[in-house]
Amino acid sequence: MKAAIIGGGIIGGGWAARLALNGWDVTVYDKSSRAIERLHQVVSTAREFMPQLYDVALPAEGTITVCESIKDAVADADWVQESVPERIDIKVEVLSAISLASRSDALLASSTSGLLPSALAENLPNRERFVVVHPFNPVYLLPLVEVVPSQWTSEDIVSRAADTLRQLGMRPLILRREIDGFVANRLQEAIWRESLWMLRDGVATIAEIDDAVKFGFGLRTAQMGQFETFRIAGGEGGMAHYLAHFGPLLAAPWSHLTNVPDLDDNLIQQIATQSDEQCGHLSIGELERLRDENLVSIIRSLKPSRSGAGDTAVLHDQLLSKKR
Amino acid sequence: MKAAIIGGGIIGGGWAARLALNGWDVTVYDKSSRAIERLHQVVSTAREFMPQLYDVALPAEGTITVCESIKDAVADADWVQESVPERIDIKVEVLSAISLASRSDALLASSTSGLLPSALAENLPNRERFVVVHPFNPVYLLPLVEVVPSQWTSEDIVSRAADTLRQLGMRPLILRREIDGFVANRLQEAIWRESLWMLRDGVATIAEIDDAVKFGFGLRTAQMGQFETFRIAGGEGGMAHYLAHFGPLLAAPWSHLTNVPDLDDNLIQQIATQSDEQCGHLSIGELERLRDENLVSIIRSLKPSRSGAGDTAVLHDQLLSKKR
Repeated sequence: MKAAIIGGGIIGGGWAARLALNGWDVTVYDKSSRAIERLHQVVSTAREFMPQLYDVALPAEGTITVCESIKDAVADADWVQESVPERIDIKVEVLSAISLASRSDALLASSTSGLLPSALAENLPNRERFVVVHPFNPVYLLPLVEVVPSQWTSEDIVSRAADTLRQLGMRPLILRREIDGFVANRLQEAIWRESLWMLRDGVATIAEIDDAVKFGFGLRTAQMGQFETFRIAGGEGGMAHYLAHFGPLLAAPWSHLTNVPDLDDNLIQQIATQSDEQCGHLSIGELERLRDENLVSIIRSLKPSRSGAGDTAVLHDQLLSKKR
Repeated sequence: MKAAIIGGGIIGGGWAARLALNGWDVTVYDKSSRAIERLHQVVSTAREFMPQLYDVALPAEGTITVCESIKDAVADADWVQESVPERIDIKVEVLSAISLASRSDALLASSTSGLLPSALAENLPNRERFVVVHPFNPVYLLPLVEVVPSQWTSEDIVSRAADTLRQLGMRPLILRREIDGFVANRLQEAIWRESLWMLRDGVATIAEIDDAVKFGFGLRTAQMGQFETFRIAGGEGGMAHYLAHFGPLLAAPWSHLTNVPDLDDNLIQQIATQSDEQCGHLSIGELERLRDENLVSIIRSLKPSRSGAGDTAVLHDQLLSKKR
């Protein structure tokens, strides 16, 4: 299989790495030599770390060829991944050039982290073959990838994208409808905004805010989301019980972001039902045991200087001194 | 050392476990026999998992004694930890009883997850010895604990609390000023609210929202917060460069939570300076390597059925099939 990466840098580099290390031949175009250099750096790091995820050798590495134009890069590609800067005017222009130069059966994807596919595709030739495929940094290690079709994207393209991404070791999350920022970045933006408020108001420094994440709930989120966490917190009483109990706290003045959805019976019921679908095959006790097994592994696996923060070596001594 | 836990359940149980497994003698009071039962369950789970964090044996386990009254439980305690339900009227009443019955040098702590210490302490006898000490579930594994003094808390009590918590293997985060919800729950609430909006608006199911966390940025947050993540994303250009570039996206309609702080030069400069203090001793390349080493360890350490979600075994096959 052949892929073209249009736009180098960290994201284009991450795609080039994940594809080439899975045996794809990759062509690359970026007008900036610095972006191409960065791409090569990312691939070089990925060569060291991506294989460590696996117990057996990866396929023979594909080639990575730098091209002099979009046209040269995409000419023979099954999959074209646009990863240029996050500006709609630039993306629209590049996507148009890609679409005109690519094979008639090529899948056309954009790495945009939040622009609507319908806005990108509105005037795009062959827009039925276009879909947003949004990865997370580092692309060669993190499995999540958001697949966001526009109203013009063919179903075949969506399933082809999902199948291909799974073969690349990724976890496609196909969005039910397009929404600015998609799902994951909406959540990250919510954290980011609240962090900025706390910093601005002198509540905490950025190191303290980061500590509040990585020594607490951040250790849980590698294995479970908020709903699964609350399911366990609710105990055998179930999510509906938990929400009836803690739901009203939502209205408390717990942040600057006070626009709160109405947690009515309908929404509570939806959550309770979906939570049973998600986790109902395991008891709370079983979920707790899984969580604890994972937490022990995660905490033990972290390097002492894991955060780069100056005090973490000291902390690690305090925290896990008996581990050494 | 002797501790009294007033209020059983998951949090009281987590405290009892962390203390007893560190060699403290613990007394417990809860009027509900069900809460006491839950406490024993938590301690029993902790006995299995907490020692796994360490390579050498923990101290000989202290005793856990269930008492018939607050008075009996606190009579001889160096440290009293209130963990009753999150209602201010109940907490104020219980804290008052604790304060009157405890030793004149006892440290009085509340596990409240967001109530202001000044509101809890306003009419409390011996309020100079009272401080909020807010842990995270499971208390016997997660290091983070928020220490929130009121204006009446003595400095000696704050440093005694922090020293003791460090000895218990915890990571005290001392808040600079009291704020509803403290730091970590403000961040969690921001995620929670945005999740509820997306669910209500039919953008994603709760399993999809949880997937968006745990297969993406949730794998990063076990080792780094948002500021450290953005520092790496910004590359050698530094945080100020990154913010100048991506800051304006904050104003994009990326969530229902649109009340956004003004990212002015002053705030940007604050972030850039603090980021240098936090991570400046390591280059971006070094930070990236640390991140990747940790990601590999974390992903490899997770159990196939890590989330309890029905499809994770399948995913794990897809994702890490070569690992087996």
